Amino acid sequence: MKNLLSMDEVSKEEIMLILKRAAEFESGAKPQLEKEYFIANLFFEPSTRTKTSFESAERKIGATVIPFDAGFSSVLKGETLYDTVKTIQQSGIDAVVIRHKQDAYYEELLEGLDVSIINAGDGAGQHPSQSLLDLYTIFKEFGKFEGVNVTIAGDVSHSRVAKSDATALTTLGANVNFVCPPEWQGEYEAHQDWDQLIEKSDVIMLLRVQHEREAAYDGFTVESYRERYGLTEEREKMMKDKAIIMHPAPINRGVEIDSSLVECERSRIFSQMRNGLFIRMAILEHILKGRG
Amino acid sequence: MKNLLSMDEVSKEEIMLILKRAAEFESGAKPQLEKEYFIANLFFEPSTRTKTSFESAERKIGATVIPFDAGFSSVLKGETLYDTVKTIQQSGIDAVVIRHKQDAYYEELLEGLDVSIINAGDGAGQHPSQSLLDLYTIFKEFGKFEGVNVTIAGDVSHSRVAKSDATALTTLGANVNFVCPPEWQGEYEAHQDWDQLIEKSDVIMLLRVQHEREAAYDGFTVESYRERYGLTEEREKMMKDKAIIMHPAPINRGVEIDSSLVECERSRIFSQMRNGLFIRMAILEHILKGRG
Amino acid sequence: MKNLLSMDEVSKEEIMLILKRAAEFESGAKPQLEKEYFIANLFFEPSTRTKTSFESAERKIGATVIPFDAGFSSVLKGETLYDTVKTIQQSGIDAVVIRHKQDAYYEELLEGLDVSIINAGDGAGQHPSQSLLDLYTIFKEFGKFEGVNVTIAGDVSHSRVAKSDATALTTLGANVNFVCPPEWQGEYEAHQDWDQLIEKSDVIMLLRVQHEREAAYDGFTVESYRERYGLTEEREKMMKDKAIIMHPAPINRGVEIDSSLVECERSRIFSQMRNGLFIRMAILEHILKGRG
Repeated sequence: MKNLLSMDEVSKEEIMLILKRAAEFESGAKPQLEKEYFIANLFFEPSTRTKTSFESAERKIGATVIPFDAGFSSVLKGETLYDTVKTIQQSGIDAVVIRHKQDAYYEELLEGLDVSIINAGDGAGQHPSQSLLDLYTIFKEFGKFEGVNVTIAGDVSHSRVAKSDATALTTLGANVNFVCPPEWQGEYEAHQDWDQLIEKSDVIMLLRVQHEREAAYDGFTVESYRERYGLTEEREKMMKDKAIIMHPAPINRGVEIDSSLVECERSRIFSQMRNGLFIRMAILEHILKGRG
Repeated sequence: MKNLLSMDEVSKEEIMLILKRAAEFESGAKPQLEKEYFIANLFFEPSTRTKTSFESAERKIGATVIPFDAGFSSVLKGETLYDTVKTIQQSGIDAVVIRHKQDAYYEELLEGLDVSIINAGDGAGQHPSQSLLDLYTIFKEFGKFEGVNVTIAGDVSHSRVAKSDATALTTLGANVNFVCPPEWQGEYEAHQDWDQLIEKSDVIMLLRVQHEREAAYDGFTVESYRERYGLTEEREKMMKDKAIIMHPAPINRGVEIDSSLVECERSRIFSQMRNGLFIRMAILEHILKGRG
Repeated sequence: MKNLLSMDEVSKEEIMLILKRAAEFESGAKPQLEKEYFIANLFFEPSTRTKTSFESAERKIGATVIPFDAGFSSVLKGETLYDTVKTIQQSGIDAVVIRHKQDAYYEELLEGLDVSIINAGDGAGQHPSQSLLDLYTIFKEFGKFEGVNVTIAGDVSHSRVAKSDATALTTLGANVNFVCPPEWQGEYEAHQDWDQLIEKSDVIMLLRVQHEREAAYDGFTVESYRERYGLTEEREKMMKDKAIIMHPAPINRGVEIDSSLVECERSRIFSQMRNGLFIRMAILEHILKGRG
């Protein structure tokens, strides 16, 4: 695996390999890189958890990180993304982690570059490292994917998490359902029977309402969204015994989830972030070792 | 000591312990950390010297620093400070250094988090690492605090340095006086007899006029402030033989202090910054060692 | 050499020494620093390649880098550059790399500071590390400077690259010519016979049209600039057999150079960036070793 661009390109075997390695890191295994690798993180969109998680994972596997300030770079002078990435490569960088608002931005980077590319989110496209940490969280809980009922609730059409996860989970044998306002279902078919889905789900994965997009609440208020599609204290009581709550965060407390549920017993929200560290260590080690 | 939040919570014994360790670092002692610790610096307000000082101290004690860009984080997406800090903790970070405009922001972080918090300035609250470096600067000069006459001049009500220092110096036995326009005295009682105070002070600690606050000069011009409350060349001549000048910086040259005095023989302004490095090494080592 | 400020101050011998050491680094030589040095990069103007190149070179020679965010520093509070740099020095930093919009900003830093200063661009002044990497690129190609015909095309008056390179190349015995609109020739005398110069040049060095300056196109459109002064596919065919194309980048594809030529066989544009890494390693090692 030279790059990690989209879950569509990652085989079942590679997924299970990365999950296994993440579990080893979680148990205290040491990374196995035989030379010094240089990595840069190019985040052209704001991020706390994904960027911090990569920055930490990179150092924990022993790589050297070269800082890159997207908001203060020559992109402001109109440089193409290809030229920017090639420039960074020429400074002796082995891999770049990129988040960019353009869907499939990486397509223009596949010819002429030698650097490895790890996609940390492309527009409304994919977010594969998030997807792998979600898979790891589910696998740790249930020991399998086959037959696990996963409900994804929220702004599906604008969510790269929903897309990456739906692809991977379906391939691995899980049953994936969506619930959201019809305007937000995008290419998927969404259910409207939220309460009924809650009762049969093993995993409820909430998505963030994207305030920063104009018309995020198109036809809704915070209160009416919460009532219709939010995970409220009442709805949590309807969940199955061993069912868990997930959310890629950042969270709008009191909108898609009641604040009191964020750290309840069922919640794996902060565990997901912890799992992200080990997953990203596994991804980085896998890609860097592949470079030789 | 798990956290360093406010000078109100630091005992005399802990202060003297940190000062002693800073002196050892200044004499070339090596830090004694037995494992690798990860630190992140969350500066939600601009800073040069405090941030640079911490960044340098962290590396000099051998910690690994995970970068965090507050101006480009999910705080922009409305995430709570608690959720942001918990997220960072989950990426494997042991301690965070935080500057934030909200007074006592750390109160909402004390439950539910395991990470150590070092307060690098909270609103108009406290700035304990600055206070400790000021104490170190005074102690190096006079070998004691008992009976040392310290005058703090300037915008006392908006200064976290004034508050932190006044608390600590008084506890340690120094005599602290304030001089400033009545509008700026806040909870303290300010003197107006600047010239008389100068003649009896061992330490004159100037505060910055905070241009960036609206109405910083309420009723003053640069020239009238300088004449009434500034440390001018004339006033410097009235100072006691061994008396010193301090300023937390950044400095407005020609406002609270004449430019020619910034590096005069009595000035400890740039020494304070040097001392800050050793003090912060001592603080960090103390807190990290306490984590085991 | 304590500082690297301007090519005017670097002797022929020092140039050749740095070029030789860069070649050794390119061949895999290990840096020879006997202690840990601390460096900060103060970029008050946007930069991708220069900043990334320095950040990478600093780590590749084994220095420790202290981050500095110019857009979020006390410079916003009106602090002078001298006070900012002295502050950084007091945090235990050995060398600073500075880019600043003011011509010869470093003059006010030469008294009272001990830190080494590496100029990464001063206003419309100089850019010596870029100049040294250009020299390295030419020397690798021709094995000499004596008699090499170099044509610099573009916005000469606003280009610190043009100034630094012209000084150094002339000293080393190359023949330097300029071609540009008369309004942009600055202190030099520009030719208008572009096609004739192309036919006799060994090196064609293109400069970026500076969109971000108002009136950058004063009297030109993108199309008319390209036709009159751009390196088009047609003009490339007129170049001498072994002649090469250089550009300090970022590139405006389709303005000063046709997009198809950016990575053509003659182009050394991305090689220049690669060479920059080794040159900056050599500069940094030379200056730091000199500090003892």
